[in-house]
Amino acid sequence: MTDPRARGVLSGDPRAVARALRLVDDRRPGHLDLLKALWPSTGKAWILGVTGNPGAGKSTLTDRLIGAYRGRGQRVGVIAVDPSSPYTGGAILGDRIRMARHALDEGVFIRSLATRGHLGGVSRSTRDSVRVLDAAGFDVVIVETVGVGQDELAITRTAGSTLVVMAPGMGDEVQANKAGLLECADVFAVNKADRDGADAAVRDLEMMIALGAPAAGAWLPPIVKSVATLGQGVDEVVSALDRHRAWVQETPAGVERSRRRLGDEMRDALGEALIEAALGALAPSIDRAVKDVEDRVIDPYTATERLVASFRGADAEPAAPA
Amino acid sequence: MTDPRARGVLSGDPRAVARALRLVDDRRPGHLDLLKALWPSTGKAWILGVTGNPGAGKSTLTDRLIGAYRGRGQRVGVIAVDPSSPYTGGAILGDRIRMARHALDEGVFIRSLATRGHLGGVSRSTRDSVRVLDAAGFDVVIVETVGVGQDELAITRTAGSTLVVMAPGMGDEVQANKAGLLECADVFAVNKADRDGADAAVRDLEMMIALGAPAAGAWLPPIVKSVATLGQGVDEVVSALDRHRAWVQETPAGVERSRRRLGDEMRDALGEALIEAALGALAPSIDRAVKDVEDRVIDPYTATERLVASFRGADAEPAAPA
Repeated sequence: MTDPRARGVLSGDPRAVARALRLVDDRRPGHLDLLKALWPSTGKAWILGVTGNPGAGKSTLTDRLIGAYRGRGQRVGVIAVDPSSPYTGGAILGDRIRMARHALDEGVFIRSLATRGHLGGVSRSTRDSVRVLDAAGFDVVIVETVGVGQDELAITRTAGSTLVVMAPGMGDEVQANKAGLLECADVFAVNKADRDGADAAVRDLEMMIALGAPAAGAWLPPIVKSVATLGQGVDEVVSALDRHRAWVQETPAGVERSRRRLGDEMRDALGEALIEAALGALAPSIDRAVKDVEDRVIDPYTATERLVASFRGADAEPAAPA
Repeated sequence: MTDPRARGVLSGDPRAVARALRLVDDRRPGHLDLLKALWPSTGKAWILGVTGNPGAGKSTLTDRLIGAYRGRGQRVGVIAVDPSSPYTGGAILGDRIRMARHALDEGVFIRSLATRGHLGGVSRSTRDSVRVLDAAGFDVVIVETVGVGQDELAITRTAGSTLVVMAPGMGDEVQANKAGLLECADVFAVNKADRDGADAAVRDLEMMIALGAPAAGAWLPPIVKSVATLGQGVDEVVSALDRHRAWVQETPAGVERSRRRLGDEMRDALGEALIEAALGALAPSIDRAVKDVEDRVIDPYTATERLVASFRGADAEPAAPA
């Protein structure tokens, strides 16, 4: 362990942690060396995903969870994955500002991660950022993300437990999204439970869970009602998350799930590394292939096969024109 | 051209087209040969993406567009990308049923494509399905998808023109999503324009477009008000889409955009092909690497580097332990 950046992170120095997160997020030179150096010190934090539809109250509930974990003396890192771009920002940023009351608490570290429109890129940045905070000694690392699409939901696979936050009466907008949220939920919070329709929302979720015909030994996501703005139901959410953590760490099905997820993660990382290496090694050939396809000299499938073969160091077999 | 499946598709036989779409979607053996055989007959259809938030009226407007293009004597293929899973279905399917009135019209072919939770997989299936319908002689191929996440929005990159359907008064739920929709929109329809807030929604979009500081020569997405259920504004939407098609095909900026997108598409396809080849060639090594990472014998970054090196046919350099 001679990497001074790694030493700074391991000592928990907030400035070193912030620098390391930027290095990792921008994938600047040296970021892989840093991640390798930190790896032996990872694996101790509990990773908690918080997701749900916009407007459900994710940030407010996250803020309450930070308070609850701090009350136990645990250090909390937060990665807020922000789907904003130059065009938006306002609404989401406003929510996040509430979390800023923890800014002076050195047991809390909050980092916003901008999504970059690059498929898979967010998952990787999130995964690596989580590892930095894990190595820095945070006991709980919360990954907060809007649950609006497959890519966004994929982020929650990094988590040991995922809390899905819903609000009653959001209607049709939520329907299309429910399947994805159900698949990633370990605990449901029906937040804003002082609104009309909270009980109906709970029944609706119960029915959907039952419809999924869960296997024996499978984890059944508990449904907790909360009013995050008033702090109601927060203890119950925390306790449901604790039970899920015990299930993951202590039951064969839970351990098997972690193993399967690590495999998925490694395969994703392999895919990303292959693309990066190929784009680097084959740039001129790729440009030529694009031009040939554009000119309709070759079909894109044959062109791709030849690029793969040339990346593998073999010569592409000359294919007969279709 | 000896492939009988290709001949069936090229003749426009609906059963051959349906079979080809299944072959391509399931990526069964022979699907690449079929796609290669069809390639010379592609490139004639205009690909139209239709996206927007759930509840905005995408399917109803798509139904009206089908009617409008049929009125011009054009044949229309539709690929409805459906984010449903065993858990959902109802609401979305209901919307789609309205389109079924075209089911007896042999100038219309509608195909639902289920998303499979596999990152990137949907984009590829969509792209290949579009090519099948293009080769089958459809003049317009509409790709309808819920615009709720990066992966879903990526699908619209296949399209020559993308119509984004919004409805007034959807509020916060839509905010988080607007940036992505704005980036992919070539034409905006503010649908359900008989509701309160339609003019405000138009102004809001105008402001967002202006904020994006569009470059000279760039396409400025027109905003059209519509009430799809009553057929109002449909002609204006069609005419805005026609203007965009002319821009893409006839201006230097439009041609350059198509070239850039083809490049992106080829790079995506290359990435997918690399992953597929690597998962096939390296399965036992990957399993071993996952186990080693799980046992913390090696860090995942070094493990990935070694897998990439072994896929490229080189021996991995022995890395010093971190």
